[in-house]
Amino acid sequence: MNIIGEFLGYFAGICTAIVFLPQTIETIKSKNVSGLSLASYSIYCIGMISWILYGIYLSSIQMIIFNGISLFFATIILYMIISKHKK
Amino acid sequence: MNIIGEFLGYFAGICTAIVFLPQTIETIKSKNVSGLSLASYSIYCIGMISWILYGIYLSSIQMIIFNGISLFFATIILYMIISKHKK
Repeated sequence: MNIIGEFLGYFAGICTAIVFLPQTIETIKSKNVSGLSLASYSIYCIGMISWILYGIYLSSIQMIIFNGISLFFATIILYMIISKHKK
Repeated sequence: MNIIGEFLGYFAGICTAIVFLPQTIETIKSKNVSGLSLASYSIYCIGMISWILYGIYLSSIQMIIFNGISLFFATIILYMIISKHKK
Protein backbone atom coordinates (compact mmCIF):
# COMPACT_ATOMS: atom_id res chain seq x y z
CA MET A 1 0.00 0.00 0.00
CA ASN A 2 2.97 2.29 0.56
CA ILE A 3 3.84 2.64 -3.13
CA ILE A 4 0.15 3.01 -4.08
CA GLY A 5 -0.28 5.65 -1.37
CA GLU A 6 2.76 7.63 -2.50
CA PHE A 7 1.66 7.32 -6.12
CA LEU A 8 -1.82 8.62 -5.20
CA GLY A 9 -0.31 11.64 -3.47
CA TYR A 10 1.84 12.50 -6.49
CA PHE A 11 -0.96 11.86 -8.96
CA ALA A 12 -3.36 14.08 -6.97
CA GLY A 13 -0.66 16.75 -6.73
CA ILE A 14 -0.01 16.71 -10.48
CA CYS A 15 -3.77 17.01 -11.13
CA THR A 16 -3.86 20.06 -8.83
CA ALA A 17 -0.84 21.56 -10.61
CA ILE A 18 -2.20 21.25 -14.16
CA VAL A 19 -5.95 21.56 -13.47
CA PHE A 20 -6.25 25.10 -14.86
CA LEU A 21 -3.84 24.70 -17.77
CA PRO A 22 -6.68 23.80 -20.23
CA GLN A 23 -8.89 26.56 -18.76
CA THR A 24 -6.06 29.10 -19.14
CA ILE A 25 -5.43 28.11 -22.78
CA GLU A 26 -9.17 28.15 -23.65
CA THR A 27 -9.73 31.50 -21.94
CA ILE A 28 -6.70 33.12 -23.60
CA LYS A 29 -7.88 31.82 -27.01
CA SER A 30 -11.58 32.67 -26.65
CA LYS A 31 -11.26 35.75 -24.41
CA ASN A 32 -14.61 34.53 -23.05
CA VAL A 33 -14.76 34.92 -19.26
CA SER A 34 -18.54 35.43 -19.10
CA GLY A 35 -19.19 32.06 -17.47
CA LEU A 36 -16.26 32.21 -15.03
CA SER A 37 -16.96 33.08 -11.39
CA LEU A 38 -14.82 35.90 -10.00
CA ALA A 39 -15.61 34.70 -6.46
CA SER A 40 -14.55 31.11 -7.17
CA TYR A 41 -11.22 32.09 -8.74
CA SER A 42 -10.55 34.53 -5.90
CA ILE A 43 -11.20 31.80 -3.31
CA TYR A 44 -9.07 29.40 -5.36
CA CYS A 45 -6.08 31.77 -5.36
CA ILE A 46 -6.44 32.49 -1.63
CA GLY A 47 -6.71 28.73 -1.01
CA MET A 48 -3.58 28.01 -3.06
CA ILE A 49 -1.60 30.68 -1.17
CA SER A 50 -2.75 29.02 2.08
CA TRP A 51 -1.70 25.58 0.80
CA ILE A 52 1.73 26.96 -0.15
CA LEU A 53 2.15 28.52 3.31
CA TYR A 54 0.98 25.25 4.87
CA GLY A 55 3.53 23.44 2.68
CA ILE A 56 6.25 25.76 4.00
CA TYR A 57 5.04 25.02 7.55
CA LEU A 58 5.20 21.25 6.86
CA SER A 59 8.49 21.59 4.91
CA SER A 60 6.80 19.82 1.98
CA ILE A 61 8.52 20.83 -1.23
CA GLN A 62 5.91 18.89 -3.27
CA MET A 63 3.02 20.90 -1.76
CA ILE A 64 4.84 24.15 -2.49
CA ILE A 65 5.63 23.25 -6.12
CA PHE A 66 2.28 21.63 -7.09
CA ASN A 67 0.20 24.39 -5.49
CA GLY A 68 2.57 27.05 -6.81
CA ILE A 69 2.02 25.88 -10.41
CA SER A 70 -1.74 25.76 -9.82
CA LEU A 71 -1.68 29.29 -8.37
CA PHE A 72 0.22 30.49 -11.45
CA PHE A 73 -2.53 29.36 -13.87
CA ALA A 74 -5.39 30.43 -11.59
CA THR A 75 -3.85 33.90 -11.25
CA ILE A 76 -3.77 34.31 -15.05
CA ILE A 77 -7.49 33.39 -15.25
CA LEU A 78 -8.33 35.66 -12.28
CA TYR A 79 -6.45 38.51 -13.95
CA MET A 80 -8.43 38.03 -17.18
CA ILE A 81 -11.75 37.96 -15.28
CA ILE A 82 -10.88 41.16 -13.38
CA SER A 83 -9.69 42.88 -16.61
CA LYS A 84 -12.99 42.05 -18.33
CA HIS A 85 -15.03 43.23 -15.29
CA LYS A 86 -13.26 46.59 -15.38
CA LYS A 87 -14.19 47.24 -19.02
CA MET B 1 3.81 28.27 14.99
CA ASN B 2 1.79 25.13 15.77
CA ILE B 3 -1.55 26.92 16.08
CA ILE B 4 -0.82 29.08 13.03
CA GLY B 5 0.15 25.96 11.08
CA GLU B 6 -2.99 24.07 12.07
CA PHE B 7 -5.11 27.14 11.30
CA LEU B 8 -3.49 27.42 7.85
CA GLY B 9 -4.29 23.78 7.10
CA TYR B 10 -7.95 24.20 8.06
CA PHE B 11 -8.27 27.53 6.28
CA ALA B 12 -6.78 26.06 3.09
CA GLY B 13 -9.06 23.03 3.42
CA ILE B 14 -12.18 25.19 3.82
CA CYS B 15 -11.15 27.23 0.74
CA THR B 16 -10.84 23.97 -1.22
CA ALA B 17 -14.24 22.79 0.03
CA ILE B 18 -16.19 25.93 -0.92
CA VAL B 19 -14.16 27.09 -3.94
CA PHE B 20 -16.77 26.03 -6.51
CA LEU B 21 -19.86 27.01 -4.52
CA PRO B 22 -20.05 30.50 -6.16
CA GLN B 23 -19.28 28.97 -9.60
CA THR B 24 -22.03 26.36 -9.11
CA ILE B 25 -24.61 29.01 -8.10
CA GLU B 26 -23.63 31.33 -10.99
CA THR B 27 -23.68 28.51 -13.54
CA ILE B 28 -27.07 27.18 -12.35
CA LYS B 29 -28.52 30.72 -12.52
CA SER B 30 -27.01 31.76 -15.86
CA LYS B 31 -26.92 28.31 -17.52
CA ASN B 32 -23.82 29.75 -19.25
CA VAL B 33 -21.07 27.14 -19.49
CA SER B 34 -19.55 28.54 -22.69
CA GLY B 35 -16.40 29.79 -20.96
CA LEU B 36 -15.89 26.71 -18.75
CA SER B 37 -13.23 24.19 -19.72
CA LEU B 38 -14.47 20.58 -19.87
CA ALA B 39 -10.86 19.37 -19.58
CA SER B 40 -10.15 21.46 -16.46
CA TYR B 41 -13.27 20.30 -14.61
CA SER B 42 -12.58 16.69 -15.62
CA ILE B 43 -9.02 16.95 -14.25
CA TYR B 44 -10.36 18.68 -11.13
CA CYS B 45 -12.81 15.85 -10.40
CA ILE B 46 -10.16 13.17 -11.02
CA GLY B 47 -7.78 15.12 -8.76
CA MET B 48 -10.37 15.38 -5.99
CA ILE B 49 -11.07 11.63 -6.16
CA SER B 50 -7.30 11.06 -5.86
CA TRP B 51 -7.10 13.42 -2.85
CA ILE B 52 -9.99 11.58 -1.18
CA LEU B 53 -8.29 8.21 -1.77
CA TYR B 54 -5.02 9.69 -0.47
CA GLY B 55 -6.96 10.98 2.56
CA ILE B 56 -8.26 7.45 3.17
CA TYR B 57 -4.68 6.16 2.84
CA LEU B 58 -3.46 8.75 5.38
CA SER B 59 -6.56 8.25 7.60
CA SER B 60 -7.18 12.01 7.36
CA ILE B 61 -10.88 12.67 7.92
CA GLN B 62 -10.35 16.39 7.12
CA MET B 63 -8.90 15.60 3.68
CA ILE B 64 -11.80 13.28 2.92
CA ILE B 65 -14.49 15.80 4.01
CA PHE B 66 -12.97 18.97 2.47
CA ASN B 67 -12.15 17.30 -0.85
CA GLY B 68 -15.48 15.44 -0.80
CA ILE B 69 -17.41 18.74 -0.59
CA SER B 70 -15.23 20.22 -3.36
CA LEU B 71 -15.84 17.16 -5.55
CA PHE B 72 -19.61 17.55 -4.98
CA PHE B 73 -19.69 21.10 -6.41
CA ALA B 74 -17.21 20.35 -9.20
CA THR B 75 -19.28 17.34 -10.28
CA ILE B 76 -22.41 19.52 -10.62
CA ILE B 77 -20.48 21.96 -12.85
CA LEU B 78 -18.93 19.11 -14.87
CA TYR B 79 -22.40 17.59 -15.34
CA MET B 80 -23.75 20.93 -16.64
CA ILE B 81 -20.80 21.32 -19.05
CA ILE B 82 -21.29 17.77 -20.41
CA SER B 83 -25.08 18.28 -20.72
CA LYS B 84 -24.53 21.45 -22.76
CA HIS B 85 -21.90 19.77 -24.95
CA LYS B 86 -24.35 16.96 -25.81
CA LYS B 87 -27.04 19.36 -27.06
